[in-house]
Amino acid sequence: MTNSEYSALTEDTLHTRIGEIPAIANHIGGDPSNWTVHEVGDGNLNLVFIVKGTNETVIIKQALPYVRLVGDSWPLPLYRATYEHHALTRQAERDPGSVPQILHFDEVQAFIVMEYLSPHIILRNKMIAGERVEGLGEFLGNFCARTAFRGSELSMASDAKKADVGVFSGNVALPAITEALVFTDPYYAAEMNNHNPVLDPVVASLRGDVDLKAATQQMLLKFASNTETMVHGDLHTGSVMSTDSESRVIDPEFSQYGPMGFDVGMLIANLLMAYFSQPAHRDEATLDGYQAWLMEVTNKVIDQFNAEFANLWNSERTGMLFPAVLFEDQGHSSESALNAVLADIWQDAMGFCGIEMHRRTLSLAHNADFESISDTGLRGGLEARNLMMGRELILNRHGADPSDVITRLAAHYNGKNIL
Amino acid sequence: MTNSEYSALTEDTLHTRIGEIPAIANHIGGDPSNWTVHEVGDGNLNLVFIVKGTNETVIIKQALPYVRLVGDSWPLPLYRATYEHHALTRQAERDPGSVPQILHFDEVQAFIVMEYLSPHIILRNKMIAGERVEGLGEFLGNFCARTAFRGSELSMASDAKKADVGVFSGNVALPAITEALVFTDPYYAAEMNNHNPVLDPVVASLRGDVDLKAATQQMLLKFASNTETMVHGDLHTGSVMSTDSESRVIDPEFSQYGPMGFDVGMLIANLLMAYFSQPAHRDEATLDGYQAWLMEVTNKVIDQFNAEFANLWNSERTGMLFPAVLFEDQGHSSESALNAVLADIWQDAMGFCGIEMHRRTLSLAHNADFESISDTGLRGGLEARNLMMGRELILNRHGADPSDVITRLAAHYNGKNIL
Repeated sequence: MTNSEYSALTEDTLHTRIGEIPAIANHIGGDPSNWTVHEVGDGNLNLVFIVKGTNETVIIKQALPYVRLVGDSWPLPLYRATYEHHALTRQAERDPGSVPQILHFDEVQAFIVMEYLSPHIILRNKMIAGERVEGLGEFLGNFCARTAFRGSELSMASDAKKADVGVFSGNVALPAITEALVFTDPYYAAEMNNHNPVLDPVVASLRGDVDLKAATQQMLLKFASNTETMVHGDLHTGSVMSTDSESRVIDPEFSQYGPMGFDVGMLIANLLMAYFSQPAHRDEATLDGYQAWLMEVTNKVIDQFNAEFANLWNSERTGMLFPAVLFEDQGHSSESALNAVLADIWQDAMGFCGIEMHRRTLSLAHNADFESISDTGLRGGLEARNLMMGRELILNRHGADPSDVITRLAAHYNGKNIL
Repeated sequence: MTNSEYSALTEDTLHTRIGEIPAIANHIGGDPSNWTVHEVGDGNLNLVFIVKGTNETVIIKQALPYVRLVGDSWPLPLYRATYEHHALTRQAERDPGSVPQILHFDEVQAFIVMEYLSPHIILRNKMIAGERVEGLGEFLGNFCARTAFRGSELSMASDAKKADVGVFSGNVALPAITEALVFTDPYYAAEMNNHNPVLDPVVASLRGDVDLKAATQQMLLKFASNTETMVHGDLHTGSVMSTDSESRVIDPEFSQYGPMGFDVGMLIANLLMAYFSQPAHRDEATLDGYQAWLMEVTNKVIDQFNAEFANLWNSERTGMLFPAVLFEDQGHSSESALNAVLADIWQDAMGFCGIEMHRRTLSLAHNADFESISDTGLRGGLEARNLMMGRELILNRHGADPSDVITRLAAHYNGKNIL
C-alpha cells in the first residue's frame, strides 16, 4: 500500500492491499482473504466497496481517474479524494456526528476507508419509497447552518480561513463540472444534456428567456467567485443516508469555498423535486400526507437553519465579521445585522435552488425521483411543475420569508397542468 | 545580492548591493559609487530610493519587515513585495502602459527595481495644488475596467484564474489591514484611530447608527469573501502619479482577489475627498472651476469604466461567465445581462466608496487633502460633508446611474453646513 503508483482497487485485489494496513485490517478483523467484498458504487464518479470482516464492516471509497458515468473519455483528477477528505474532517469538527467517521486516508491511492452506515439507506430512495425520517429537517438545517457559520469569517480567524481558501483553490476540476452542468448547460442545447421530449415547449421557453439566463449567470458569478465558507458542494438527497430516525451527510468531493446559501439552496431543490414527483409514487390515500411531510421537512430545514445560525451568531461570533466591538460592546443589538445576513443567504439560496431544479431535469445528471417514473407523459407533467417553480425562484429571488415563498409556490405549482 | 538573509537597503549600502546586479548596474550606468541615491519614501510602509546614474534614473522600492508609519512594534511580512510584483506584472498585461515598468525583482530582499516616473508627481498633491491632468478620467476608468474584466472569469480561463486565487490567498497580512482599518475601525473607538475633535457629534451619530454598521460589515463580508477579479486594493489618488497629460498607477501591494467594484469605488471616494477639501485650497476665483473639473473627472471615470467594460464584454468575453452559447449564439442580445453585471458592480462600488470616505477621516491613515488644512474648524466642516455623503452612499447603495447619484450628492453636501 506504500506503492507510489495509483491503481484502482478491485474485489479481487482489495483483500491483499487493504490487509497490509495493520490498523484497518485489525479493525475489520479476521483473515483478509476471508473478508466479504462488494463493489456497490452507484454514483457517477467513484468505486465504493463494502468490506465485511469478523469485527466490523467498512466502506472504502476510491476515486477513479475518470468520470465513471461517462468512462475514460472524461478524465477527472484523483485529487478529488483529497478534497473529500479535507471536507469530511472539517464537517466532522463543525457538526460532530453529521458525517461518517474516517478510519484511513491514502492520498496516492485516492481512497478513504470510512465507517459503514447501517441500516442507513440513501435518503432519495426513502423518499421515492414514501418513508419518513424522524428529525430530518432539524438535522439538515443544523448541518447547513453549522458548516456555513463555522467555516466562515463570522467564526474562523481570517488567516486560517484564507489559508484554507488557498488549499481548496486546487480543487478545480469538480467545481468546473458544477459550473458547466448546473449553471450553464441547462440553458442551451449542450452536448451532454438530455430531457424528457414532452418538455420541449417548456424547455424552449426557458432557453428563450434572456432575463432568466442572465440571472443564472449572475448566480454562477456568485458561486465561482465567493469564498464565504466551505460548502459541501453537492448536497442533494442522494448525499444523505438515513435510518428512520438518524441521518448522515456523505460525498463532499465537490467541496469548495462558496456562498453560505449554496448547500441549503441545493438541498431544498432536491426536497422540492421529491415533493413534485410524489404523484407518480404514491396512491391517493397517502399522497397528500407524504407531500405534507416533505413540505414540513423543507420548512423545518429553513427554520432550523435560521435558529441555529442565530444561536451561533450569538454564541460563537469570534471572527472578524460583525464583531461585538461594533454592536454588543456598544450596547447595540446586532439582530438587524443578523437578519440582513440571513436575508442575503436566503436570496442566494433561492437562486441556487431554482437552478438545481432546472439542471436535474435538463442537464446530464438527473434525479431518480423523476427518472424512475416510466410513464414519460406523467413524468413530464411533474417535471414541468418543477421547472416552472425553479424559474420563478430564480427570477424573483427574495431573501425574506423563504418558508412562505417555498410553501406558496410548491402548493401553487403542485396543482397546475402546464403541458 | 544572492545573500539569503534579508537586509534593508540604505543610502550607503545601495551602491554596492545594486551594483552587483549587472543588468541593473548597466541600465543605470556609470560607476555605482558615483550614483546619486535618495531615500524618498513618504508612504506608510516601505523604503523608496531614487537612484540616478549616467544613463538612467530608477526607483527601488523595498518592503520593511514592519509598518514604517508605526515602527517595528507593528510587524508586516516582506512577502508583500512578492504580491506587489505579481500585481504589477498582471496589471501591465491587462492595461499596457498603466503601471511603471519593472526592471528587476528580488524576492528575498523584497525589493523591486522599476522605471522612474518623471516629471510625474503624486496625483493627490496635484489636486491639492489645483492642477489639472488631461485624460485622467479616461485613463482611470480604463484601468479599473480593464483590470476588473481581464482578471475575472468573464475573460480568464477558470483553471488559470483559480490557480491565481490560490497564489494570492497567501497575501493575508495586507488585506487584514484593509479589513480592520477601512471597514471596522472607523465605526468604533479603535485604539489607532484619530479624528478632528470638532467632528465628535457627527462621529457619535455614525457610530450609533446600527444600520450603517451592519451595512459596512456586509460590505466587509463581500470584500473578504469575493474573488471576482484581482484588485489593486489601495487605489487612491496617492497611488496615481501624473504629469499634466499622462498617468500611471503605482503601489499595488494590497492586491488581492476581490469584488470588481472595489478599486473604482475607492478611487471615486478619493476624488470626492479632493472635491470636498477644495474650499480650503482654492481662492474664490478658481474654486468653482476646479471643483467642476474634479466632478467631470469623476463622471468620466464612471462613464469610461462602463464604456470600456462594455467594449471588453463584446470583444473579449472568453471566460465561462455569460458565455456566447447562451446569448449571441442563440440570437439573444446579452446587453441586459451586461447591464445587470454593471449594476451589481456599481452597487458594490458605492458602498466601498462611502466606507473609504469614512475611514480616511476617522481611522488611522488620513488624506493630505484634509490633513493639510491647518484650520481645524474649517477642515471639520469639510470633513463633515464628506462623512455625511459617505453615510448616504453606504445606506442607499444603488447600482443604477452612479454618475447621477455622485453628482447630485456631491453638489448637495458641498453647500451644506453640518457642524
